Amino acid sequence: MDVEAYLAEARTLVVDEIRTLTPADSRWTGGLYGLVLDYPLRGAKALRPALCIATARMLGAPLDAVVPTAAALELYHNAFLVHDDVEDESLTRRGRPSLPAEHGVPISVNVGDALLGLAMRPLAQNAREIGAGRALGVLEVLAEMALRTAEGQALELGWIRRNAWALGDRDYVHMVWLKTAWYSFLAPMRCGLVVADGQRLQLAVNRTASMLGIAFQLQDDVLNLQERARYGKEVAGDLWEGKRTLILLHALARAHGAERQLALDILAKPRAQKEAAEIDWLLDFVHRHGGLDHAAAAARAHADRAARAFAAVAAAVPDSVHRDFVHGLIGYVATRSW
Amino acid sequence: MDVEAYLAEARTLVVDEIRTLTPADSRWTGGLYGLVLDYPLRGAKALRPALCIATARMLGAPLDAVVPTAAALELYHNAFLVHDDVEDESLTRRGRPSLPAEHGVPISVNVGDALLGLAMRPLAQNAREIGAGRALGVLEVLAEMALRTAEGQALELGWIRRNAWALGDRDYVHMVWLKTAWYSFLAPMRCGLVVADGQRLQLAVNRTASMLGIAFQLQDDVLNLQERARYGKEVAGDLWEGKRTLILLHALARAHGAERQLALDILAKPRAQKEAAEIDWLLDFVHRHGGLDHAAAAARAHADRAARAFAAVAAAVPDSVHRDFVHGLIGYVATRSW
Repeated sequence: MDVEAYLAEARTLVVDEIRTLTPADSRWTGGLYGLVLDYPLRGAKALRPALCIATARMLGAPLDAVVPTAAALELYHNAFLVHDDVEDESLTRRGRPSLPAEHGVPISVNVGDALLGLAMRPLAQNAREIGAGRALGVLEVLAEMALRTAEGQALELGWIRRNAWALGDRDYVHMVWLKTAWYSFLAPMRCGLVVADGQRLQLAVNRTASMLGIAFQLQDDVLNLQERARYGKEVAGDLWEGKRTLILLHALARAHGAERQLALDILAKPRAQKEAAEIDWLLDFVHRHGGLDHAAAAARAHADRAARAFAAVAAAVPDSVHRDFVHGLIGYVATRSW
Repeated sequence: MDVEAYLAEARTLVVDEIRTLTPADSRWTGGLYGLVLDYPLRGAKALRPALCIATARMLGAPLDAVVPTAAALELYHNAFLVHDDVEDESLTRRGRPSLPAEHGVPISVNVGDALLGLAMRPLAQNAREIGAGRALGVLEVLAEMALRTAEGQALELGWIRRNAWALGDRDYVHMVWLKTAWYSFLAPMRCGLVVADGQRLQLAVNRTASMLGIAFQLQDDVLNLQERARYGKEVAGDLWEGKRTLILLHALARAHGAERQLALDILAKPRAQKEAAEIDWLLDFVHRHGGLDHAAAAARAHADRAARAFAAVAAAVPDSVHRDFVHGLIGYVATRSW
């Protein structure tokens, strides 16, 4: 199964749909729609739409039935990225300056809101493709998604604001389930079920998506500290931003005395007061205490759980390229390099 | 007709509905929902839900059919207020510190997103009250509303960022129609029509709502510079924020030479570099050139146009307290003191 090729095809479909949905700029739009298309056209992986399409199609739904929902998910994802870059003060995104770095906070907050508004369009018109009942079912999933994602962000921002570090693996895993797994895996797969009338598989799909989402974020954290050249974000951005990752929590739980205190002192500083040498020291620190190995192993363990949960789904649907894609993605997520 | 009493009743209904919709905080929500309820409970006027309820009810819809949609509109309004306070760096809101002033930009952006997510809940469950077809019709209005509002914000933020002052009355009126009239008047009244199956009145309602919305914002601008004690926002906040109002554009069009240049020099400064004495000088400046009188007269003229457009709506529906409220509101908007 060529996971990358399936993703690329989903990306083409969804980017076309997003271009069609987006109005052209005029003298009365203040350049809004050029900025709305900025992140979606920056070579995303289209993971969420691909997963939604694959789930619906492995249950027999036609492609046209699921593309509007897939496009809405990708628009939501990009809205979250824009607001996330504001909230985390991220300087780069997909290898280029972030929207707030280039256009400031006010314009970026507004562009994120426009992406959220644009996402409502295919959802409001979805009745044409899947009937009004299922269209509202998709909306219900997305309403829950929006709240879960905001809860995850609130937890993480609260920890950063209160400088909380007395956190266990369970705190991290639950936060990541809310912040990442819900909108990147649970919502796409559950929307696919709604589109294909496959709610009988919901329990097994929930478990698959939850474990896959946690594995994905764990691997993302590892890549953030590991990959320097190929990865699109800034190097060790998580350390600059003071993110509570399993990597850091593991190292802090193993360190003692002055070394541990030095790590906490650096992490307590706001980003602008940190220095590159301090970030390098933190990188050595987490390596020294096996933080990266611990997180990579946890990513593999969660991917294994996802694979076991997905076996129950796979047994209930016919063999297809779409089923193979989800299966392949599970194997891929904990070993990928993007 | 007691406009204030009708507003107060709508407020009670909608605040109750919002309380019911909002989850309780737990150890896994990072205090999100306490902050989500902050602005909605700060004594808002409930203008938008009242207008939506009145429009639906004057066309014969029962109250239960329209309350979820009215609550969604109020949640959107509060989401926009939160993100607006981030974008404008506003320090106060309804007489108290603004959310960003109290909790910072990251948490405020996220609270706004949670309010937007919460607004989707009654919309997704609206089929119970009004059937799936009309529920999706409401969603379509709100999708357009979200984009128009973002377009208006983009226009205004673009003018501020480029320090553009070569703007005419028409630029201001169109920006305000997008930024304020759409979500505060057009969307509430059009949602009311959808709920009550009254789309035959759409042209007259569009005209009423557009003129009323422009009148409302013009009066808002006047109040911002006039009322110091009773008004809930900071004094002359628009001048601190460098907002392009009809008041300022009118004064700048009438001023000359060094005086005009001094005004432009003050307005070009970022908020943190402006001084209170400069804001006082600007207040005298706009008074001297009749800016406030000009805007107040324009507010009355737009309210008159709204009244003429609403006559066509009123002729098509039976006499009721709901029809009287809209009529009363039109008379009220250009003379109000809140």
